[in-house]
Amino acid sequence: MALVVQKYGGSSLENAERIKRVAERIVETRKAGNDVVVAVSAMGDTTDDLLDLASQVSPVPPDRELDMLLTSGERISMSLLAMAIHSLGAEARSYTGSQAGVITTSVHGKARIIDVTPSRIQESLDAGAITIVAGFQGVSQDTKDITTLGRGGTDTTAVALAAALGADVCEIYTDVDGVYSADPRIVPNAKKLDNITYEEMLEMAACGAKVLMLRCVEYGRRNNVAIHVRSSFNNKPGTIVSGSMEDLPVEQAMITGVAHDRSEAKITVTGVPDHPGVAARIFRVIAEAELNIDMVVQNISQVATGRTDLTFTLPKTDAATAVAALERVREEIGFEQVLFDEHVGKVSLIGAGMRSHPGVTAVFCEALAEAGVNIEIISTSEIRISVVCRDTQLDDAVRALHEAFDLGSSEEAVVYAGTGR
Amino acid sequence: MALVVQKYGGSSLENAERIKRVAERIVETRKAGNDVVVAVSAMGDTTDDLLDLASQVSPVPPDRELDMLLTSGERISMSLLAMAIHSLGAEARSYTGSQAGVITTSVHGKARIIDVTPSRIQESLDAGAITIVAGFQGVSQDTKDITTLGRGGTDTTAVALAAALGADVCEIYTDVDGVYSADPRIVPNAKKLDNITYEEMLEMAACGAKVLMLRCVEYGRRNNVAIHVRSSFNNKPGTIVSGSMEDLPVEQAMITGVAHDRSEAKITVTGVPDHPGVAARIFRVIAEAELNIDMVVQNISQVATGRTDLTFTLPKTDAATAVAALERVREEIGFEQVLFDEHVGKVSLIGAGMRSHPGVTAVFCEALAEAGVNIEIISTSEIRISVVCRDTQLDDAVRALHEAFDLGSSEEAVVYAGTGR
Repeated sequence: MALVVQKYGGSSLENAERIKRVAERIVETRKAGNDVVVAVSAMGDTTDDLLDLASQVSPVPPDRELDMLLTSGERISMSLLAMAIHSLGAEARSYTGSQAGVITTSVHGKARIIDVTPSRIQESLDAGAITIVAGFQGVSQDTKDITTLGRGGTDTTAVALAAALGADVCEIYTDVDGVYSADPRIVPNAKKLDNITYEEMLEMAACGAKVLMLRCVEYGRRNNVAIHVRSSFNNKPGTIVSGSMEDLPVEQAMITGVAHDRSEAKITVTGVPDHPGVAARIFRVIAEAELNIDMVVQNISQVATGRTDLTFTLPKTDAATAVAALERVREEIGFEQVLFDEHVGKVSLIGAGMRSHPGVTAVFCEALAEAGVNIEIISTSEIRISVVCRDTQLDDAVRALHEAFDLGSSEEAVVYAGTGR
Repeated sequence: MALVVQKYGGSSLENAERIKRVAERIVETRKAGNDVVVAVSAMGDTTDDLLDLASQVSPVPPDRELDMLLTSGERISMSLLAMAIHSLGAEARSYTGSQAGVITTSVHGKARIIDVTPSRIQESLDAGAITIVAGFQGVSQDTKDITTLGRGGTDTTAVALAAALGADVCEIYTDVDGVYSADPRIVPNAKKLDNITYEEMLEMAACGAKVLMLRCVEYGRRNNVAIHVRSSFNNKPGTIVSGSMEDLPVEQAMITGVAHDRSEAKITVTGVPDHPGVAARIFRVIAEAELNIDMVVQNISQVATGRTDLTFTLPKTDAATAVAALERVREEIGFEQVLFDEHVGKVSLIGAGMRSHPGVTAVFCEALAEAGVNIEIISTSEIRISVVCRDTQLDDAVRALHEAFDLGSSEEAVVYAGTGR
């Protein structure tokens, strides 16, 4: 008998009909001889509706109470799901994050899981019950207050439960069939990947692939939990995230996929005095505003003026704060101006194989050049190349790279033959 | 500094506007120098909406999961109320029943409070916070599962918290100004009572007065918690429920009020063999169907036949079950038929003073006779007289008794002068 952890998101649980369909799938898994633990998100628009209520009573709701409010969403979906399972003749019990032993830090709204002590979940499984757990939530180790994990929290709950219970697999049910070599809305012949390593998936997620959140993949890698990303609308196998690229066979595919991201903006600080420590002061200002930056590039200093330009990207939602923070220190630091540009896109090529294959960067740049895409910033890691370009050219860039690296048509491009992960 | 426990029901918290109004009242109480604990129900129609969702996924939802579902209602209202208080500049923290230490039996849907261990509530008060607690819910002592207390549960939560914390008063906010000498919708000159003893309030509640639930009053009496029933829509003093009728001065008012009840049905079992033990067997059948009966009357046996009729009342909602249970044993017990009548009403006169005033029953029956009301069943206790009549005559009966005992016009009729309770 295997232990399977499944995760269903808000769209899979949008209404009573969908909840019943999910219940059927869970009961099938149980009838196939598995122990089943299920982590759920709130139904469809529940979280937005609750946030709307909060805004009606308070302009800036306190974090503690916002977490208390939002966690009622999973309480509703989990108990309804347990009822739906029960009406199919199977035993089901639902547990809040706190009851399930999901212990977190006390940072409301974006708590991190410290530990999972699943004794009640284990008891429920031992009693033969399908066990439903509220995703996205936990209880603070220090204050015993209810916390939420922030975006993608239910994926993380599922992986954390799988790790704590020693589950055989953690199935993340979503509205797509798995992880693709590119967004199928942009690249019609994008290929579903059967397998992907944690490292590659981390790069994909960090570069804009929305199917799994970064922290969930990190948790899976740290605890070696096999994550199966699949559709809640069909029974096709999806994508299995597992294994390290260290273990990949040499003859594996070079490139995994193309990710893109429209959520970033570009800020350029011009006429920066080119002395040691000036760039550091600029980034200190950004850090003190609690903003995270992504890519950074510094132009070659102009000898005549002794000044340079500093460009970086960060989430569009943080850009206004960053610009304001920089303007406040313009005179003190002595730079010329802050330019803000939100019409940028980022495209990234990811593949563990590129480590051992020279020439990937050349093919990458040639493909973009042929598509008429101008590279504004470029940044690389061992298994990734990312560039920033005009947002109007982003789709062209994604298609050009997908084509250049033959990701759609070639089976070898995406399957790690024989690894069996 | 006094400790005040307040309770607000669903209609007082129906929407954001009302929640903000309640928040203002709470902050005023705090600013007047009191420690404040607040028990809340779910907002307006939330419970009905959740029950509707449950019925969509399951014909007979399991009790455990139904409790898990319904308790999300108070979680929403309590966190929104805490936010609204916070936005008025006061500190507020909300706690679930479980967090507040409300320990119950494990009967889902109608759990009873066993104990309240309010250490976290006390800590919150010690930290100077207005403390909001989810009403209607607790945690089972045995299973650690979430339970609900059933109808009127939030009133009971408030009184239980007041008892456990040693509060100076428990204020129950409602949509009426207090407890009246009769339903003002039937008797326009009904008088609001300033004070009423626990015993009288228990009789009023048991006889159909809906302002307070029986179990909440029982809890208050057992723990000697003064309950102040008042309106959430104005600042007028309401009705204080406290003290025992043993302590009432001799010169107190004779009669407190008239209660009525339309929720009962009358069942008559005819041609019952008049032997010892037959009535007991009939009531055993009802008890085994888990139905509670209210009033009982047995006719004088007819000597010619050796048979009698047995009549009793019970909630209309239980009547069909009772009739079916009785029909199943008709031949075995040997009675003739089961007659069912739902067109009955019950009117009751309540007053601690009637103990020491002879003639109350005579005045009572004369008043009904003059109003043309036929008495079908009569039952009395030390401080109450109840009769069953046609439901079409119920309003007339209430008015006739209120008038006959001079409850509307005479101050002395409703004020316990000088008792200061």
